[in-house]
Amino acid sequence: MQIREILDRPVQDWFSGEQPEGDVVLSGRVRLARNLAGVRFPGYASPEERAQVEQQTRRVLSNLAKEENTETAYIRMEELTDADRQVLVEKHLISPQLVADTQGSGIVVDKDAGLTIMVNEEDHYRIQCLGGGLQLPRLWQRASHIDDLLEAQLDFAYDNSLGYLTACPTNVGTGLRASVMVHVPALVRTRKIQRLIQSMLKVDFSVRGLYGEGTDMAGNILQISNQVTLGVREEDVVARLQSLGEQLAKEERAAREQLKGIPALTDEVWRAYGVLRYARALSGDEALTLLSTVELGRILGIIPHISADAFREMLVTTRPGFLQRYAHSEEQDVQTRDTLRAAVVRDSLQKMEKE
Amino acid sequence: MQIREILDRPVQDWFSGEQPEGDVVLSGRVRLARNLAGVRFPGYASPEERAQVEQQTRRVLSNLAKEENTETAYIRMEELTDADRQVLVEKHLISPQLVADTQGSGIVVDKDAGLTIMVNEEDHYRIQCLGGGLQLPRLWQRASHIDDLLEAQLDFAYDNSLGYLTACPTNVGTGLRASVMVHVPALVRTRKIQRLIQSMLKVDFSVRGLYGEGTDMAGNILQISNQVTLGVREEDVVARLQSLGEQLAKEERAAREQLKGIPALTDEVWRAYGVLRYARALSGDEALTLLSTVELGRILGIIPHISADAFREMLVTTRPGFLQRYAHSEEQDVQTRDTLRAAVVRDSLQKMEKE
Repeated sequence: MQIREILDRPVQDWFSGEQPEGDVVLSGRVRLARNLAGVRFPGYASPEERAQVEQQTRRVLSNLAKEENTETAYIRMEELTDADRQVLVEKHLISPQLVADTQGSGIVVDKDAGLTIMVNEEDHYRIQCLGGGLQLPRLWQRASHIDDLLEAQLDFAYDNSLGYLTACPTNVGTGLRASVMVHVPALVRTRKIQRLIQSMLKVDFSVRGLYGEGTDMAGNILQISNQVTLGVREEDVVARLQSLGEQLAKEERAAREQLKGIPALTDEVWRAYGVLRYARALSGDEALTLLSTVELGRILGIIPHISADAFREMLVTTRPGFLQRYAHSEEQDVQTRDTLRAAVVRDSLQKMEKE
Repeated sequence: MQIREILDRPVQDWFSGEQPEGDVVLSGRVRLARNLAGVRFPGYASPEERAQVEQQTRRVLSNLAKEENTETAYIRMEELTDADRQVLVEKHLISPQLVADTQGSGIVVDKDAGLTIMVNEEDHYRIQCLGGGLQLPRLWQRASHIDDLLEAQLDFAYDNSLGYLTACPTNVGTGLRASVMVHVPALVRTRKIQRLIQSMLKVDFSVRGLYGEGTDMAGNILQISNQVTLGVREEDVVARLQSLGEQLAKEERAAREQLKGIPALTDEVWRAYGVLRYARALSGDEALTLLSTVELGRILGIIPHISADAFREMLVTTRPGFLQRYAHSEEQDVQTRDTLRAAVVRDSLQKMEKE
């Protein structure tokens, strides 16, 4: 299996096409934090201990691939270029933290990158299952199954009263973080999103921007995840977030209905399209904002010729790492990148006009 | 001769195609104010006196047409719809003042509207010769010739020490107002225009916006005209403004050279094009601003496929009167007009892309 294939493609198969609630929920993820018993957490481990975790990983891979009927590869972070690592972050396959400390760390990735296991990130293992649209129970079942497969061959640190032990206390217990990424341009426009965010925070969900903590609501995209991992059942956490995703999708659709036929929105959508179609420089934030507006226009039928995957694709192709790979350059100044970003968007939209 | 033809066409023949200094100077005009001796000025005249001026006009028309080898028509303002009159103002063929007081007033217009004579505006006669680009001496010669033709049949109010008598003292003497309309987007962008305007004001030229006094510099278009009519020779006034036009054209071209190859300008030009190409609503001012930017882009070779006449045409087709005629409607609210304006611009640009 070639990591190149995954790096080169803007979106994986599981991210494209029709998806459950896919008009609002872009993707979902279930992640389990696990650590080897008797080995220090990566942040405290010696290089030898980190290498030992990597060796243990390689040992269990062939069984994992066989049982899951897939191909897997272990890729050491040090083997990748900065741009490659950046692309993996942009595709949400790995965390920025894994990039920050590359020594003795790596990633297990399966054929279509629906499964990744970060090795020696904050914990020894972060098992991640990703899927398009809203299908958290299925992702949880897969993650749980992989957890079982690994646990049959590895000795995970587990405490009978606390549950799974993790480097950070906020993960102790289930080690589970389930999350969904939602595109809610109509809830933002109708100013309903603030109240919804407040109510989600009250019931212990965390709400963040597209690229994690501290990032704002660029592109009208939110990541929602559970906060609590201690004293809860995994199935309950997953079911609650799944249900929240369904509710959000319903509310976003209702807000979209309200916006239908408003001339000012039609004008705004076409202007956004016009700028994306012809601009010679686009900042990352501006691109996200305009792409979100055009996607709303596509959904409302204002711009009929845009393909359903365009938004999800360009969310990735307009990111710095992808642009760097695209231009085969190691370093890019902001101007070069903004120029390249505009060219990539222009080409994509031009192609769609011709199809 | 049909006034309809003139109303329907965005630009007259003399306004399109290659013109001397036409990349900067859109058009020039020479106007002579004349009054009949012994008849009160229109502002003080009785309806009978105004009618008498109109009759005198009709009497001399056939000779004028023969001598000038053209066709002429006298059109009473009252025969035209509000939208028609508005279009004549937008094409700079008549003044807003003529529209304000339509009773007993009218316009003589020749075949291609290069000659118009406003009747019973502020003065009994306002002889106007218009031409594309910068060719004031030629326009002056024509206006002077027409003045001679009229004077051979009409008794103009003339004082041996003052010269021609006019309703407003600012026109007494020559009765001559020469003006040029210039498009100076590069002088505006490089902030050189303010100094130039100051120096023009100092030597007794007047500087105004596209639609006369009090209008700002919408579309980076300025009208420059002489202020003084008393104690000067017509040839000198015309020669000075001609020379000023040449100098402005030179400075604007130098400023354009400075802007060449600046990436931010290329981006701005294409964004302006994108908005014009796709927006669903455009205000008059926004349209002017964006059209000016796109025209600068055309001149600098940034947008190659735009036709050389597009800017001059759309300066007219995006104006309220023209839009009203276009939609065959008598009254338009601002929203309807902005929507129609965007549609007109979009269609024009789309056609050019296909050609």
